[in-house]
Amino acid sequence: MVQEEIRRNNVGTLLRHVHLGGSVSRTALSERMRLNRSTIMALIAELTRAGLVREELPQGTGRAGRPSLVVRPESGRAYVLAFDVAVDRLVAARVALGGIVLDRREAVRPRAGADLDRVVEVLAEFGRRLHGEAPPDALCVGVGASYCGMIRPGDGMVRFGPDLGWVDQAFGAELGRRLGLGLPVSVGNEAHLGALAEQQRGAGANFQNLIYLHGDVGVGGGIIVGGKLLDGDSGYGCELGHMVVNPYDGRPCGCGSHGCLEAEVGERALLDAAGRPAELFGRDAVRAVADDADRGDPAAQEALHRIGDWLGIGVANLCNLFNPGMVIFGGTLREIYPGMAAQVRARIAANALPVARERVRLRTSALGYDATLAGAAELGFSGLLADPLGVLARTAPCSARR
Amino acid sequence: MVQEEIRRNNVGTLLRHVHLGGSVSRTALSERMRLNRSTIMALIAELTRAGLVREELPQGTGRAGRPSLVVRPESGRAYVLAFDVAVDRLVAARVALGGIVLDRREAVRPRAGADLDRVVEVLAEFGRRLHGEAPPDALCVGVGASYCGMIRPGDGMVRFGPDLGWVDQAFGAELGRRLGLGLPVSVGNEAHLGALAEQQRGAGANFQNLIYLHGDVGVGGGIIVGGKLLDGDSGYGCELGHMVVNPYDGRPCGCGSHGCLEAEVGERALLDAAGRPAELFGRDAVRAVADDADRGDPAAQEALHRIGDWLGIGVANLCNLFNPGMVIFGGTLREIYPGMAAQVRARIAANALPVARERVRLRTSALGYDATLAGAAELGFSGLLADPLGVLARTAPCSARR
Repeated sequence: MVQEEIRRNNVGTLLRHVHLGGSVSRTALSERMRLNRSTIMALIAELTRAGLVREELPQGTGRAGRPSLVVRPESGRAYVLAFDVAVDRLVAARVALGGIVLDRREAVRPRAGADLDRVVEVLAEFGRRLHGEAPPDALCVGVGASYCGMIRPGDGMVRFGPDLGWVDQAFGAELGRRLGLGLPVSVGNEAHLGALAEQQRGAGANFQNLIYLHGDVGVGGGIIVGGKLLDGDSGYGCELGHMVVNPYDGRPCGCGSHGCLEAEVGERALLDAAGRPAELFGRDAVRAVADDADRGDPAAQEALHRIGDWLGIGVANLCNLFNPGMVIFGGTLREIYPGMAAQVRARIAANALPVARERVRLRTSALGYDATLAGAAELGFSGLLADPLGVLARTAPCSARR
Repeated sequence: MVQEEIRRNNVGTLLRHVHLGGSVSRTALSERMRLNRSTIMALIAELTRAGLVREELPQGTGRAGRPSLVVRPESGRAYVLAFDVAVDRLVAARVALGGIVLDRREAVRPRAGADLDRVVEVLAEFGRRLHGEAPPDALCVGVGASYCGMIRPGDGMVRFGPDLGWVDQAFGAELGRRLGLGLPVSVGNEAHLGALAEQQRGAGANFQNLIYLHGDVGVGGGIIVGGKLLDGDSGYGCELGHMVVNPYDGRPCGCGSHGCLEAEVGERALLDAAGRPAELFGRDAVRAVADDADRGDPAAQEALHRIGDWLGIGVANLCNLFNPGMVIFGGTLREIYPGMAAQVRARIAANALPVARERVRLRTSALGYDATLAGAAELGFSGLLADPLGVLARTAPCSARR
């Protein structure tokens, strides 16, 4: 019984290494898992028989002699469906082990509200199609979704979705029902998932303490403390966008407060500062300000500097509180951060304690707008990685479910 | 070998339960440690032989029949020396298992600077006396110290002690050398240790996510995330006192910045707001403002309200970031919090997201000014609790060291 648990755990851990590493040698697996070579080979053999990994020669080693084999994830057997409800679009993807996006569907979504029913209808339709087009022997092993709002841990209930005006909407349950795959849907907040994805596959690989800021209409946050996402007492921590930075002169915030970080550095604040008309909004409008600043437009540059000053105060506060190894700017902040990096750095130098900031690295997201989708895919894979062979044994092939 | 490690771990875990619980029944130990009764009894017997615990009848059960025995820590055998370098005093204590202060020495320390040499001289003298007066068969099993500044993890180096003007001073090493007990000194930041002590023995017992704010000249912080102290990438997180809350109109802060939480709610801010002369400072002066406000003095009440508003902004930000189960006000904040609780609560209601604040409890410190000393004692006990019998075997009795 205990032996069986240890073996299951080892199989899962090995698959996780291969899934996240993309290509790992037997020797590296042996070292990381502290298991001897014959045990590692037995685990690889099990996963190979299950169709989840394959061994092959490393590409382009160019060394003399026989190179040692590397283990790679097999992308044809197991996949997850990943969904992303962002402020301006709905995305669905079929994602293989190794985080490879095999296929995707995307729809623009109107800014002005959309009810649960409509959003779920679009996503479920995408999901069923992606599933229907998978090879007959492929197995859908999980479903994950990213949502731009506060999600109750456990059941995927949207507690508060400021953008769509959702309060207590059973998004995860409803999407699961409409997909009709008999699989539960794991839902996470977009910035939380973006942070995990950047740590697992992006700019923050191997950082145990990092902060991810996700810009869209507002600013979301995912904070990794000691290798784990900070969740707080009931799963609603990390709301760095609602840190008050401008208490007495602040812009109104969608949350009902004033002077929140997201009110001062969010999309509207930037577009207003750049003198853009109220009808303009969205990623393209934000990128246009960044592009204009790049081309030397003084109004756009001044807008970035002003917003960068507020962002810098927020990041300085986060350095003092979290002493992070890295701060990552994602979503639309990835577009505008380069034009405001000097202000952000100046504020950190002025407002964060030297010991709390001396080693911090500031980076833009490596995964770009797909960070949230990648995080959703990881949610979907979590069951398989906990017990690969058990999950495969319990999963019917796609052909049997159509 | 593995068996031996498991046994050592079990002995330590049982001692920790008794040390923190004060009095624990065999049944409770069996349940908490998931071990059967005979294993628990064997572990208790080992610790009893070592003189670290004793079994006795529970006090005042008043029930008929034979009550079951409880296990208590034995206070005569093992003790630690705990030191506290606070902004206005130096404290040393001999502390027994169970956190019982057996003996203590305390000296007022002048506000205006003191060099490492002088501080260590006073503490080492206290320590040697406390040690010299211990019973001959008692064992000093560790030394812990709390310091009002930023401490490098590992070696007790004071990286930054704003109050004494210390930068990179080898406090832990020097205190260890002067004590001459052949024991290393574990040093921690006072607010970090206060947070751990409140979680282990105070207001926050059993809370896995809590924030401790420690007021003295400034405001220090200890933040527990998922049961562990947030340390950050290099051990310098939790500096909530330097979160900027008033960026453009803020008071100057000792750190060189402006508008930090501690600049707005620290001792000087309060005393200035209450119109107290610049010569007044310290705990008594702060308490006098709280007392005056209690007696209905409008200027003192107004000062508390104003400071409470800033404190509330800071706590609202912390709720959004950490979604804590509890926020604890310690040090001088314990004196003044009751008079500003309404402002703090109003700010939290206005500036923290409902889901992030709906379950948070606000409390004053249960351990009072001794929270930091209690935390230092726990640092001292950490070695013993990891391997009780091993540490005892390696420790010479006090009589042999005098």
